[in-house]
Amino acid sequence: MGKITVIGIGPGNLDQMTPKARAAIDAADVVAGFTTYIKFIKSIIGDKEVIGTGMMQEVDRCRLAVKAAADGRNVVMVSSGDAGIYGMAGLVYEIAFEYEVSERPEVEIIAGISAVNGAAAVLGAPLMHDFAVISLSDRLTPWGLIKKRAMLAAQGDFVIALYNPKSKSRVKNIEEIHDILMQYKSPETPVGIVRSASREDERKVITNLRDFTKEEIDMFSIVIIGNSKTFVKDGVMVTPRGYKI
Amino acid sequence: MGKITVIGIGPGNLDQMTPKARAAIDAADVVAGFTTYIKFIKSIIGDKEVIGTGMMQEVDRCRLAVKAAADGRNVVMVSSGDAGIYGMAGLVYEIAFEYEVSERPEVEIIAGISAVNGAAAVLGAPLMHDFAVISLSDRLTPWGLIKKRAMLAAQGDFVIALYNPKSKSRVKNIEEIHDILMQYKSPETPVGIVRSASREDERKVITNLRDFTKEEIDMFSIVIIGNSKTFVKDGVMVTPRGYKI
Repeated sequence: MGKITVIGIGPGNLDQMTPKARAAIDAADVVAGFTTYIKFIKSIIGDKEVIGTGMMQEVDRCRLAVKAAADGRNVVMVSSGDAGIYGMAGLVYEIAFEYEVSERPEVEIIAGISAVNGAAAVLGAPLMHDFAVISLSDRLTPWGLIKKRAMLAAQGDFVIALYNPKSKSRVKNIEEIHDILMQYKSPETPVGIVRSASREDERKVITNLRDFTKEEIDMFSIVIIGNSKTFVKDGVMVTPRGYKI
Repeated sequence: MGKITVIGIGPGNLDQMTPKARAAIDAADVVAGFTTYIKFIKSIIGDKEVIGTGMMQEVDRCRLAVKAAADGRNVVMVSSGDAGIYGMAGLVYEIAFEYEVSERPEVEIIAGISAVNGAAAVLGAPLMHDFAVISLSDRLTPWGLIKKRAMLAAQGDFVIALYNPKSKSRVKNIEEIHDILMQYKSPETPVGIVRSASREDERKVITNLRDFTKEEIDMFSIVIIGNSKTFVKDGVMVTPRGYKI
């Protein structure tokens, strides 16, 4: 019986991937994952077998990877950021559970620096306090539920981090969420947008709730909307924890 | 002018700290932080100067660290997990902002594996979807606001991660939150509790919403409460992303 180790490679540059994740790659015979993410680690893969994207969807790729592990290979499945946050960790378990226990490969999850942590570090300290993470992709989640979550998070004055805020084919979701947030949060609430955190093409913008949808946002962007205490000073976005200073 | 770099060391074992954070420690003259966390990295500090806890509170320790940087030293401020999530990142900025720009040390934040990511990896894949992170410590946050956030997160069927769920002097908060969550989530909702994720004394329990407060929980525990789709199988807690498999 082989093993499948699901790792998060962090924001993309090797110095933000943990030694534990790195060791899992080094030990693997087979590397599986979305081709874009595999490129980030190309320099350390060597001539290992790759199960990349091609025309395959996530489920088929994942099934191939789990099968390779069941067949005795040592497989590493790569997610960007953290595999446990909108990544491949859940799907690998779901597919592994299709095997009887006696036939099932071992599954291990190794945490990574998630996109929201990476983006926050680039902006300053925008999270710091209670926060909610919401994906605006309605491919796998009913749009009504996503809107409801945005509304409730805004009512609770959570810092809100948006994953998958926009794609070429999905441009209106963020406008609807903007309308909802404007009902509950001040239009002056600081908003940070980060794309490709800590990679060469990193871009960051700090603006406010009223205006943020005018900025360039795509599926690789993370949007962080402050709470009522969040402030911006000298280009840095900070949510105070509440210490008296 | 010196520099203060605020790093997250991850869950505590060195193989889950990023090379970037490690490099910041190596480059520093002075290491500041809560003594418990500094112990985790003792083997790599060497004979650098340490600004530890002693009897100092966070604010005083942070002030000393920022002053050392303003005086020209290269300081690294250590948080466990990620410094941007209930860590020292915000406070360092707030104190640095007390200095005029011309006197202010450079501040850099380096992301770490946050406690919630570390705990999730130990439990399986409990986050995976939209989630809310709430600290139950009411030292710096009004208790009414914390309860309101827990209620709204439960209404939104978020996966909910609780930081600081309980301490020796604060044992009732988690009971009140339990009562609130029971109003909106099924008593069978899976709940995972992890203490000292990926350290030698790691402990994990997977139980359900009805019963989880009977388990041993302390200030170093992370509690993750699933959404309505979360399931447990063969000792693993998984929240499906929604793929049709």
